[in-house]
Order: sequence, then C-alpha cells, then structure tokens
Amino acid sequence: MFESAELGHKIDKATYERSVPALREALLNAQYDLAAAARFPVIIVIGGVDGAGKGETVNLLNEWMDPRHIHTHAFPEPSEEERERPRMWRFWRALPPKGKIGMLFGAWHTEPIFKRVMREIRSADLNAEINQIVRFERMLTDEGALLIKLWFHLSKTRQHKRLKALEKDPRTRWRVTDTDWARFKLYDRFRAVSEYYLRHTSSGEAPWTVIEGEDARYRSLTVGRLLLASLRERLQRKTPAQSSSNAPALLPAVDRREVLGSLDLSKRLSKRKFDSDLEKWQGRLNLLSRDPKFKRMSVTILFEGPDASGKGGAIRRITGALDARQYQGITIAAPTEEERAQPYLWRFWRHLPRRGRFTIYDRSWYGRVLVERVEGLCAERDWMRAYSEINDFEEQLVLHRTVLAKFWLQIDKEEQLKRFKAREKTSFKRFKITAEDWRNREKWDTYQIAANEMIERTSTSPAPWTLIESNDKFYARITVLKTLVQRIEAVIDSKAKR
Amino acid sequence: MFESAELGHKIDKATYERSVPALREALLNAQYDLAAAARFPVIIVIGGVDGAGKGETVNLLNEWMDPRHIHTHAFPEPSEEERERPRMWRFWRALPPKGKIGMLFGAWHTEPIFKRVMREIRSADLNAEINQIVRFERMLTDEGALLIKLWFHLSKTRQHKRLKALEKDPRTRWRVTDTDWARFKLYDRFRAVSEYYLRHTSSGEAPWTVIEGEDARYRSLTVGRLLLASLRERLQRKTPAQSSSNAPALLPAVDRREVLGSLDLSKRLSKRKFDSDLEKWQGRLNLLSRDPKFKRMSVTILFEGPDASGKGGAIRRITGALDARQYQGITIAAPTEEERAQPYLWRFWRHLPRRGRFTIYDRSWYGRVLVERVEGLCAERDWMRAYSEINDFEEQLVLHRTVLAKFWLQIDKEEQLKRFKAREKTSFKRFKITAEDWRNREKWDTYQIAANEMIERTSTSPAPWTLIESNDKFYARITVLKTLVQRIEAVIDSKAKR
Repeated sequence: MFESAELGHKIDKATYERSVPALREALLNAQYDLAAAARFPVIIVIGGVDGAGKGETVNLLNEWMDPRHIHTHAFPEPSEEERERPRMWRFWRALPPKGKIGMLFGAWHTEPIFKRVMREIRSADLNAEINQIVRFERMLTDEGALLIKLWFHLSKTRQHKRLKALEKDPRTRWRVTDTDWARFKLYDRFRAVSEYYLRHTSSGEAPWTVIEGEDARYRSLTVGRLLLASLRERLQRKTPAQSSSNAPALLPAVDRREVLGSLDLSKRLSKRKFDSDLEKWQGRLNLLSRDPKFKRMSVTILFEGPDASGKGGAIRRITGALDARQYQGITIAAPTEEERAQPYLWRFWRHLPRRGRFTIYDRSWYGRVLVERVEGLCAERDWMRAYSEINDFEEQLVLHRTVLAKFWLQIDKEEQLKRFKAREKTSFKRFKITAEDWRNREKWDTYQIAANEMIERTSTSPAPWTLIESNDKFYARITVLKTLVQRIEAVIDSKAKR
Repeated sequence: MFESAELGHKIDKATYERSVPALREALLNAQYDLAAAARFPVIIVIGGVDGAGKGETVNLLNEWMDPRHIHTHAFPEPSEEERERPRMWRFWRALPPKGKIGMLFGAWHTEPIFKRVMREIRSADLNAEINQIVRFERMLTDEGALLIKLWFHLSKTRQHKRLKALEKDPRTRWRVTDTDWARFKLYDRFRAVSEYYLRHTSSGEAPWTVIEGEDARYRSLTVGRLLLASLRERLQRKTPAQSSSNAPALLPAVDRREVLGSLDLSKRLSKRKFDSDLEKWQGRLNLLSRDPKFKRMSVTILFEGPDASGKGGAIRRITGALDARQYQGITIAAPTEEERAQPYLWRFWRHLPRRGRFTIYDRSWYGRVLVERVEGLCAERDWMRAYSEINDFEEQLVLHRTVLAKFWLQIDKEEQLKRFKAREKTSFKRFKITAEDWRNREKWDTYQIAANEMIERTSTSPAPWTLIESNDKFYARITVLKTLVQRIEAVIDSKAKR
C-alpha cells in the first residue's frame, strides 16, 4: 500500500511556482461554491508517519484557502473535560458543518494504532475499534459528507535520513528528541499496524489515500489537486448519492399483538401510597446522587411517549430529588440551523454531560424514528439506518459508565382525549395544548407502529427501554423513580465489586 | 430487541386459512416477476433459537412457492472438502443467482455465535468475525442483493414449555435429547451473545427482523408477508439503488514518478545463466511441491500485465516443474452468464483449490480494476469498492494458509510493439495477436494509471504484488520462479517453527 509513496516523488521549484497560483485560485473558488451551496461538509482526516509533513500540509491549506471556512483541529492527549466523555466525543465536536471544511489532524485512528504499536491493546481489541470506526465513517458518508482520508508516508530510509539531517543542523537539532529515536525504532511495527488499519478501514466510499511526505512541493501540489478534484466532482453532482435503500420490508403486523398494546394500562396507585412511595424513592435517589462513587459515572434519562402522557410531570419528580447544580434538563424541539448542518446525532453528542451529572431529555434522539419518520421529514433509508446509529451511540455512552434510562410513557387514546380537554379548561395549562397536538392525535396509530418498531430495534441489553403504563400518573411516576434508582444502584454496586 | 417476539403472537385457524390462498398466489407471482426480471438475487438468512420453527418455515416457503426458483442450503458441520477452504467458501457457493431466492438455514452467523456461547472464542474474536461479516454483507447489498435476515425467537419460558411438551408426548419424546437440555441451560448466554451479534450486524441496508417462533400460523403469515412486501417493493423500483459514489477523487499524478514507471526494464539475463538458473529453481519448486508439509497449505499464483508481456511463458516455466495432477491453470476471459448473475468475486471463490494444490491464474479478479475500469464496463463506485473487497478476499485466503503470489509483468511500449510484430510474422503465433490487442495498445497510458492505482491499493502485507521487469524474458521467468520458491519456503519454514 505504500509502494507509490516510497518512489521519491519530487516537483522542481519552477514547475511548482508555475502551478500554484492557478491551483490556489481554483481551490478558493471551489471553497466559495461549497459554502454557497452548503449541501455537504468536507472532512479531511490526516494521519501518517512522523515528519512526513502532516502539520505543514495543514498550515499550507489554511494559507491557500479562506481560513474562515476551514476548521482545523488537532487531538493531543485528551483533556480532563474530554476524558469525562466517551472517546468519540472530541471528534463529534470537531465535525465541520455543511459547506465547511474540517481538517482533523490525527483523528480517531491515532489512538488505536498507537496503542497497538505499543502493545497496550491486543490485535483483537484493535479489531473492535476498527469495527466501531467503520460504522462511524459509514454514518458520515451516509450523511453525505465528503470524507478524504490522507496518510502521509515516509520510507524507513528517508525517515532515518530526515532525523539525521535535523540533528546535524544546529538550528533544528532541538527538534529531534529521544522520543523521536525511540519511535523510529518502532518504525516496522508502526508500518505493519498502520497498513492493517488502513486496509480494514478503506472502503469504496471512504478509501485512504497514501501520499509520499518527503518533498514539500510534491506533497502540497498533490493534496491541493486531490482536494480540488474531489470538491469539483461533488459540487457538480446535483442529487446526493444513495437516495434509496436496498433494505427489505419492515415486519408486517399480522395479528393485533404489539408491545405497547400489551401493556396493562389499568395499573393504579392510591394517593396515599403515592405520597409515601414518592418520599421513599426520591430519598434514595438523592442519597445516590451524593454517593462518592457517583462521581465516576453519569446518568442520562430520556422520555418519549404520546402528547400529554405525563413526561413533564415525571421529570419534575426526578429533578425534585436532585440538587439543581447537578442536573440539566433538555427539551428537544426542531433542530436549529447549526444542528441541521451536522449529522443527525451531533446535537445529542454536544450535550453529553461530564461525569457525576444527570441529563434529562424531554424527547430525544428517537425523534428520527418517531416524528421524522411519521411526518415524512426524513427518507426511509435515513431513519432505517438511524436504529443502528442510535444503538452504536448508546453503547458508547454505556461503555463510558453512563446509566442510560429510556422511558416510554404509554397512555391510551381515551386518556389522551381526557387530558387534552382538561388542559383546555385549565387556564394555566392551556398553553400546553395546540392545534399540532390535535393533528398528531389523528396519526395515533401510525405513531404507535413507529414506536413499537423503535422499541423492538433499540431495546438492547446495554440500553433497554422501560415501558411505563401511564394512564395513572401516580403509578407512572413511582415506577419511573423506582426503575431509575434500581438502575443506578446496579451500576454503583457493580463498581464496588470490582 | 426480543420484546415483540415474546408477546405470544397468535393467529386463529380461520383467519389463517382465509389469508393463505391469496398470499401464496401473490408470492408465486412475485417470484415469477423476480425470475423474469433477473435483476437481483434474494438471500434469506435464517437464524434463531432451537425449536422456534426455522426448519418448518423453510419447508413451508418451499411448499408455497415454486421450488425451482428457490435454493435451500443448510450448513451442518463443515465437510472435509469445506474445511480445506476458507470459512466463507461454503456460503459463497450457496449464494443464489440474480432472479432466484436462496434460503440459507443457519448461515455465517451460526459458528461465531455458537463458539462464543461455548466460550471457545473470546469476545474480541467475535468482534473480528463481526467485522468481516459486516463487510461481506455490505458487499452483498452493494451488489444489489435483497438481503432478508430473519431471527426466530422463543422466550425462555416458552422454550422450556416446548421441551416439556415434546417429552410428555410419547410420539415426540425421541426428539428431545440431553443435548437439547444442555443447550437450554445456556439459554441466557445464547440470548445475550445473539443480541450482541444482531445489534452489531444490523444496518439500514441489512437489518435483522426478529419473529416470534411459537405459533406456526403467526410465524408463517409473518414471513410470507414480509417476503412479499420486500419483493414487491424492490421489483417496482426501476433503477438500482446507489448508482453514484460519495468517494473523494483519486490520487492525481503530480509528477511523472509512478511505481511501474520506476522499474528498471533494462535488467537482463544471459541464455547460459538462464538455463542453469531455470534448472535450479524448477528443481527447488518441484522438491517443495513434494514436501510432506505442503499437503497442509495451498498456492495461488496470478499473473497480470500488458498483452504480450510474457504471462503464458512464465506460467509454463512454473507448470514445467510440477506434476500435472497437482495444479490447475485458469485463464480469465469475460464472465459466463452464470457468473454474471453473481457478485463479482463469486467466480473466483468457486475455483478455490483444496489444500496441497497449485492454482495459476492467467489474468484474475483484478480485471475489475483494470479492463473493466478502463473500458467503462463497470461504474466507478463498483470498481472503487472492489479494492477493499479484493483485499478482504485475499486476506481470507492467506489466513487459510494459502501462499498468494501476485505477479505484474511489466514491459514498455516499444517492447510490446516488437513482440506484436514478431507474433504476426510467426505463423504459429499469429492466433495470439488480434485487433483487440492493437486497440488495447492505444489505451496504454490509461491501463498504466489503473495498474499503478491497483498496486497501490492492493499490495498488502498478507498479499504483496511482485513487480517483474519483463522486457527480457529470461530475467522475468527466473525472477518469477525464484520469488515463488522463496514465498513457499517462508511459509513451510514458519509452519515448521510452530
């Protein structure tokens, strides 16, 4: 894979200086067209051998192009803030919006390759990382991103020569450290692991391109022209690729049995029992939130369910037990302009809490497979892939010691009608009922189909759904609190055992 | 993920009997439309819990539909013939051609799940298998296959009841063995591993569908309707999905340096040296082929290069050293009708040799990224993904103890002209030169670009390309033989060390 990048590619100064002005102009024009159309983001992933010109290339592109439309990110050792979130969080934060170019200098590939070279992880663990990365990159290209992965390479001989040359020159001697020589000793191993990684993360949609790093003029012209050709080709294309899906049909409803329909909505709790239970479970929740072990985990709670199913009320019973500085409540409405310019899950990644905190969602990332599906706001192939993207996302949260509690509050159609009418009668609740609520109600059955499918495809062992019979608010609220307390206790106890 | 499949779905007899005739008719019609259009294959993968009706469903579909257009395959313990090939070989053989339905009863998922449940492999190894399977299934859907993955499920309680009921009835008691009870004890573990597998191999294009297995009528109607809806939806679609690619541009040629152009074609060998070297290397090759350790490996050799670069001559110098019963020579021409109805690599999988044998390809699977790319016989997105598909394929060969020797014979344009003219003058060689050869010659540069790109993307550590300077036939032939001998020796020696 590195054959072409060990040939000693070279461009003479005259050719270079003759070529650059036109290239720069064309790149700038393409960049403005990209920004004007704002149809897709460009993600340039930069990896490779030390000293092969990664940093110089990043600087050069920033110089050649309009830096207002380029975001450059480097990923040194993770900060404390970053270590408190799943590993991919820092990369999600760095994704460029549609119309912009993001240069990721040492992206998600760096840590797995480095750790494997240093034998900190086993080859099988590297495979698990690769699996996750392949799915992540597929999500990016499915979202329409132009993903350009550049690997800067130097042969062993040239790497050796380069270090020697830097050492010889008094002006650059300081740049060569013992670490550099120690890493050079690992050259062969680094090359083998990188080749394995490149091979297993290359696909038709997101191939790696290997570039010889030695000659600055060759390297710069190559990267510039590659970027230009990729931009031009994608800008010319009118329709985004892959508008239809090869997926089979969804499970047909053959009998009338379905998960939500099978809930026993007659479950009830008396006011007296509610009051005593509320005190008990809120007390336990509060104790847990102050447990020293809680500092090493976090809790994400989300609520879905029909309008007027009692999501707000249940949330208030949780927050009532917590210190206001310890939780964040998030209500999900239509995405903002900034959010629409990013992959679907981006707006949820951005809100991920640090450790020791609660985040409570009133509606959530499941909007994709509920309202967006039912209202036709996104194509079938997009919501179909959302199930696995969501499962991957939630798995990462849970692996990062997040208790993820997903509550579906189920009421029946009659109960909803009763509550709608009651809201209309109570002046201070009237704002809670709108024409849209009545419209949604007409699509009750379609929403239930989507909800059943969602539960089926996203109730997983790391992140199960809890379905709450909610015709009775007392019963629903206590069940939510109790489930939450038990889920947190299970994790705190399991930590203790370790 | 199994929520809906634990509800006790049921269809009463009357409803069932009322629904079946129309469903069968519609299925038959869809099946004939599928066969008539012959645009895509249908692959039904069947997995799940023991006793959840997998076998019955397969039988039923065969009864309902026209069995001439359905191929059913079960995969018990691999045969000796199968164990001598890479693990995926038996599944490639079972793929249905376009226009047909293939039912794979316990497909590629069975072994990884089972081995993990029995703790024969680690969780990280399961991830490596999953990675491979995800890439394989993506290839299938990229090729346009309608991939329907059905998982038949039974809750633990129902599984228990079922075994008890079978034991109680004297007519079915024989069906319940100690193995069944032993496996039942592993139910929870099986469920957990299966859920993990299903979750990580579900994607928007190839999702798993979980079906409750207890009630035969429910199960049958569900599968029938799901299949019908999937067929109808795909048959109605005019154009295949995904005709364009989201890939970035290819590496531009910035200087004139390229891998093939950098070869020193002046390398020569005298006739005398050739004669003595030929004897030496052929002798060593023959000895190797009779080494007892050779029985546990196999050798695949392929030749690519411009017309008249000497592929045939080099091949004859190899076969001259071998027992005719020990090798198979394969010349790759345009695919047959049968081969065109399958994924691209199918025709190469079918020829994979058993152990202890040589297979020599005169042109190979690389046609996809050479002639098919240059002549525009396949879309860019298809040859772009071929690089990784080929790398995956070759990795499987090598992991299965195949020495894979890939030779590119390089000559220059002048040498080709000389050879063309010589062929035209020699009557017994005249058949070797056609108008097509002259036409290909006009595209010399385009072919060289494609070849350079191919070498760059598919020369990997398990399966490197060997580039042979072939202006001098003596030099080329000896280098091929020598390389081959050394590659085989390396593997035989490495085995000995273990």
